[in-house]
Order: sequence, then structure tokens, then C-alpha cells
Amino acid sequence: MVIDGMADRPLKELGYKTPLEAAETPNMDKLADEGICGIMDPIKPGIRAGSDTSHISILGYDPYKVYTGRGPFEAAGVGVDVLEGDIAFRCNFSTADDEGIIIDRRAGRIREGTDELADAINSITLEDDTTKIIFKESTGHRAVLVLRGEGLSDQVSAADPKYDGKKWTRVQALDDSPQATKTAGILNEVVEKSYHLLKNHPLNQERIKNGENPANIILPRGAGAVPHVQAFSEKYGLKAACIAETGLIKGIGKIVGMDIIDIEGATGGIDTNLDNIAQGILDTSYKDYEFLLINIDGADEAGHDGNARDKLEFIEKADEVVGKLSELDDFYFILTADHSTPISVKDHTGDPVPLVISGPEIRVDDVKTFNERSATNGGLCRIRGSDIMNVLMDLMNKSTKFGA
Amino acid sequence: MVIDGMADRPLKELGYKTPLEAAETPNMDKLADEGICGIMDPIKPGIRAGSDTSHISILGYDPYKVYTGRGPFEAAGVGVDVLEGDIAFRCNFSTADDEGIIIDRRAGRIREGTDELADAINSITLEDDTTKIIFKESTGHRAVLVLRGEGLSDQVSAADPKYDGKKWTRVQALDDSPQATKTAGILNEVVEKSYHLLKNHPLNQERIKNGENPANIILPRGAGAVPHVQAFSEKYGLKAACIAETGLIKGIGKIVGMDIIDIEGATGGIDTNLDNIAQGILDTSYKDYEFLLINIDGADEAGHDGNARDKLEFIEKADEVVGKLSELDDFYFILTADHSTPISVKDHTGDPVPLVISGPEIRVDDVKTFNERSATNGGLCRIRGSDIMNVLMDLMNKSTKFGA
Repeated sequence: MVIDGMADRPLKELGYKTPLEAAETPNMDKLADEGICGIMDPIKPGIRAGSDTSHISILGYDPYKVYTGRGPFEAAGVGVDVLEGDIAFRCNFSTADDEGIIIDRRAGRIREGTDELADAINSITLEDDTTKIIFKESTGHRAVLVLRGEGLSDQVSAADPKYDGKKWTRVQALDDSPQATKTAGILNEVVEKSYHLLKNHPLNQERIKNGENPANIILPRGAGAVPHVQAFSEKYGLKAACIAETGLIKGIGKIVGMDIIDIEGATGGIDTNLDNIAQGILDTSYKDYEFLLINIDGADEAGHDGNARDKLEFIEKADEVVGKLSELDDFYFILTADHSTPISVKDHTGDPVPLVISGPEIRVDDVKTFNERSATNGGLCRIRGSDIMNVLMDLMNKSTKFGA
Repeated sequence: MVIDGMADRPLKELGYKTPLEAAETPNMDKLADEGICGIMDPIKPGIRAGSDTSHISILGYDPYKVYTGRGPFEAAGVGVDVLEGDIAFRCNFSTADDEGIIIDRRAGRIREGTDELADAINSITLEDDTTKIIFKESTGHRAVLVLRGEGLSDQVSAADPKYDGKKWTRVQALDDSPQATKTAGILNEVVEKSYHLLKNHPLNQERIKNGENPANIILPRGAGAVPHVQAFSEKYGLKAACIAETGLIKGIGKIVGMDIIDIEGATGGIDTNLDNIAQGILDTSYKDYEFLLINIDGADEAGHDGNARDKLEFIEKADEVVGKLSELDDFYFILTADHSTPISVKDHTGDPVPLVISGPEIRVDDVKTFNERSATNGGLCRIRGSDIMNVLMDLMNKSTKFGA
């Protein structure tokens, strides 16, 4: 169970405690008391991990090889069945004027009807008819674009100009390969055709009538080639499911071949429905899965917002989820975070995160509370994200002996 | 000094202590008190090491490069002077019938006369007269076979069918190379010829007369090419000896060029003669060696047998060996295990092992007892097997500065 961005730095306003130290977390503390603790560097000490690269590492894959960009994981996360070699992009629906100036990168934070607009995009016929477009809306103004075909590359720049009031950026090849040149050309064609298709779309005519910015152009960014990834079930021989709130983490679960369990009311924010998440974990645990990857996102959101009180309170609620899982038995429970998201920084940092493993035959240590500093006295000392699956497989007596 | 398989997991029958925690080990505790402790992953966290791969790693060689299979180390361990490129195998003397069905893989657990049978095998003339056979008996029904010549490969399957009542398995090439095909052919020829040579051997006629299964065929397995290994003395500039009980560890010592000190009465079991081992260490220490690799095996045997009491008692006896070494001075004493062999698992696991280093100018820490959990609080924190020689060389002021 990964409490996203839970770890932090000491805060003056909390008496130089971290939110996790200041929070009342009796259930996490019980895990620490009954388990073995340590600190964990998702990638290595001081490396600022993203949620994606950290989860990739924790699952035992090398993010330096597997992580080609955010696009593939987002695309998989919204349900596109990506294939190795596909080039995937995150996209915004945005508002452009006739000159191509982006008036509103988020198209008035459009929330509804983007599925209809996606249908329109999927109807685009490219000049190069060997390349297939797969476009899918995500939440709000977000969407994903996947290009499938021969001779494509992810070495292309973004169309998103990053700021309102600028013209959309023509996509450029980032290397000299014909593949990158071809892909850049296709992307520019997609962006242009999206404007022509969407500007008079009935949904946008309706939006204009209502004084809302039309979602009349799509702007790709975050190019990545879908990597070759050995299925988790094949790598470890474990039937696995993923319970996550965000498309990014669901996408990682999906790309490694896990079953994705959707939870109603899981928003990825501090307002998420933690009761449903806890119940979903329990329900899934009683099915025939041997491994569950669980990600709860709210603490990270509060960290990005720089709101210590929200973070502390969300951690206390997440602690109740931990408590509800105590009815399960004969399993290993690993509780950690994927990175620190300090209130003072409002972004991820490379500070290590606390980790606890509880379960049968553990060398239980003397640590009785679960937080960034208490865990440093634990029996695991300091390990890396990439060690976790090896340690777990070994505890489960499912590891392979190297040698005699 | 490596107490083979000493580390363990907490055991209910020992009040949730490990055998090492439950044992009275005043001499190991004194080392911990006067030294610096830590935990050590022989290879890396969670990786289940064999005794061979662990020792290779501890001596500063990369097991992923050096460890080609068990054959080369077993062969070196029984005294064959293996050369780089030799293809080495572990063998059983077994009992076959005229159809080639293996009636008894261990040939009635033959104990005597295998040297005579080995002479017969060494007399085999191969069709390919550029390949030389070197065959040597080991303990009991065990032996080693070495093929020396040009154009050989270790990518070949085993002849041993693994179960009684099955025909011996014709050796197959495991890749498409002519070398593997050639080697498989030679092995099949050796197995066939061994049967023709041994079935009417006087020793076997005698065994049959006594109602014992004859040792009338040899079955190779565990193919490995003898790796290129830089001599330990050259790598570290230290004249080194190895005091070990088992062929496997002696073989590692021999392959890295150490002098092998044989100890009378060293059985590798819990019945071994620890007095002789202690005396052997003292005697060898007063010679002009600068490094001793010591392996004591009984705790691992007790672990494989799942006998907590035997393991605990053997650790207490090993502790007395540690005590007897206190007359030595001006040296660094590193005490550790090569892996955990938990009673509950009856095999090696990837759990880390405790480690203590005592000697001059050590940053002595607060750890006062030597076991799996106390050592986690030590000044070494968590290191890897491959770090040990670097740390030792540096303490001895024999390391090379990298940079200015």
C-alpha cells in the first residue's frame, strides 16, 4: 500500500514534526510495532522520483529502461489497450482562435461531452494511411492520443505552448531520424485537423452560446513509446490486481498486466471515498489474487497544495483504512509512500520514505511508531524501491536460489 | 569467518528468537561489543544466495560473472587442478540395468573403492582424442568430471534423470553451437563407456555378491565452464589460505588461488571436530598468511534439517571457536554468515545476515550482542557482501585512492 507523497520534511507550524509524525496514526503504528521498519529510496538516495517512476521501481522494473515518458502510462490508465511500440501522448482539450493562439489551455475546464469530441478526433483520416489514431478522453479537459504504425518515434516536442496567449507550438523532431520527422508531421496534421473538426462541433457551438470556451483543439505532450515490459504475473508468478485512483498509477498496473479494480468515488483528492477504497481492498483480497498494489493519492495532493492541515488529516483518514484491513490474515502488508511531497516544497523531493513490512516470520524490530524518523531505527535499515519485490518474494518463500 | 547458514528467522519454539539470539554466545557478543556491527546482504536485498555465490561475492568477485555452475567449484574442491575453459560436472556413481534404467542413483550409497572406479573412468579413450577426461571421486557416491580441450561448451543438459526407475537422460546441447553439440556427444560417450567399463569391474562383482547395488555408471550434471578469475593474491596483494569443510567452499578458495588447509575430522556437519578447526586456524594464523577465509558448516546443515536445537547448540560450539582465537592480536576479525538457513524454511533465504568487524581503529558502535536484530543498530548499517573486501582493505590501509 502506497500512500502517495505521504512523507515530508519537518514543519515549523507542526512543532518541527512532519505531518505523518504529527498525525494520530494508531493503525500504522501497530503495523510498525508488529513489523520490521526501514527507510526506502524509491530510486536511489536524493533522486526525486515521480509517482510513475517510483511505482515502476517498487514493482521491480528499471525506470531508466521502462519509463519512456508519461504518455504510455496515462493512455493505459484511461483504458487504451496500448501495444509495445505505440507512441502515446497526454493531451489537453484547449481553446484556440483562428490564428492558432491558445486562449485557454484547459478549454474552460470542460467536464462533459469530451467523449463526443473524442469520437470526432478518432474519425480523422491521416495522409499517411498506415498510421492509426487512437484518442480517448480522460477526466476534465484531459485526454490521451496514441499513434500506432510503422516508422514512428517518441523523439518529438510538445504542441502545448504551456501558457495561455501563445500560439500552439508546431511539433518538432528531436533527433535527425526519419521516424521523428514523420511523427512530428503526423502530430501537426492531427492538431490542425482537430481544430477544423472541432471548431464547429455542435457541443462547442452550445458552449459558445453558454459563454464557455469551446474545446476546439487538442494539444499533445509527454510523448513516449510504449515499452516492452514483462508481465508482473510472469515475472513473479503472482496473480495481481491494482487498486488506484489516478490514471497514471492504473496505467502502470495495466501496462504490467495487473487487473485494474475501479473504486466508485475514488477521486485521487482529499475528498476521495476512503470507505469505498477500504471495502474494495477487502473485497479484492478475498478473491484469488496473490498481490495487490494499492495507491491512495490524497496526501500527495495536499502536499502539492502546501496544505499541512489537509495532509495531516488525510493521513489520519488513510490510517483508518489501514485499521480496516486488520481483519485479513496470513499475508504480508507493506506500507510505504512513493516519494516525499513536502508542504514547504509543494512538489516531490528525493527524501527517503518510511517503510514497514508486517507478516509471518518477520524479524520484528523495536520501532513502535510509523514515520520518517522512527523508521530509520528499523531492522530494514535503508533499502531501495527496487529491493522491495525481492524481499517480499523471499519472505513468501517464492524466490529462486542463485547458486547451491 | 563465515558460520554457514547461521542466520535465521524468529521461531515460536524459541520464544520468537532466532537460534543465534537464543544461543549463549559470549565470545561473539564480545566481538560485537568491541567492534562495529551491521547487516549484510550477500548479493543484494532479498536475493537467495547459495553458499558458493555468497562466498564469491564476499571475496569481491561478481557471482553473476564468475558463477557458471556448481561443477567447476566442486571439481576444484576435490583437488582437480582445473584450468580456465575446462568444462566441469558434478557426477553420481549410480546403478543401471542393461536397458540403462537407473535403479539406484546413489549406487547403494557406496563409500569405499570409488578411487579404483575413478581409475577405470580415467582410462576411457574418447573418439575425439583432442579432449581429455579428468575424473575424480569425492565423498560417498559423489565424483567430478572435467573435460579439457578445444571447442567445448557448458551449454549441455544433465545425464542424471533425478529419480530412480527412469532411464538415464541422453545429454542434449542447450544451444545451437557446434561446441555444445560436440560436448553433449562426448558426455553421452562417457556415460555409455562408463557402464561398459564398470559393470564387470571386480569391485562391482564383489558388491553384487554382497547384495549391494553396483556403482556401474556415472551420471554428470551441473555443467559449468571454469571461469576466468583473477587470483586473490593478485587482486588484493594478500597471501591467503582457506580453511573450509566442504568441497564447494574449498573449491572456491582453490579457484581464487588460496592455499587450502585441510583439517582432520572436519565433516561439514554438526559432528565436526571444532577443536581441530580452532587449532588449525591458530596454526595457520601463525604462518605468513595475511588473509584467512574460514567456513564452518554445521549450522547450515542443522538449518536444512529444520532442527532448531541442533542449530542453537552448534552455534554455541562455534562461539567457543571464536573464543579460542582471542589469543591472536593485531588483526581484523570479520564474523558473519553467508546466508540465512531458517529452520522453518529448511533452505537458504534472502534475509540479511549479521556482520561484525573488530580490530584496530574501528569506529566501535553501541551494539553489545551479536545477532540478526542487534546488528541492525550497528555502525555499518546495511552493506553488501561485495563491500566487505573493500572495507577490510581500507581498514588495513591497503586500499588504492581513487582520485587525488
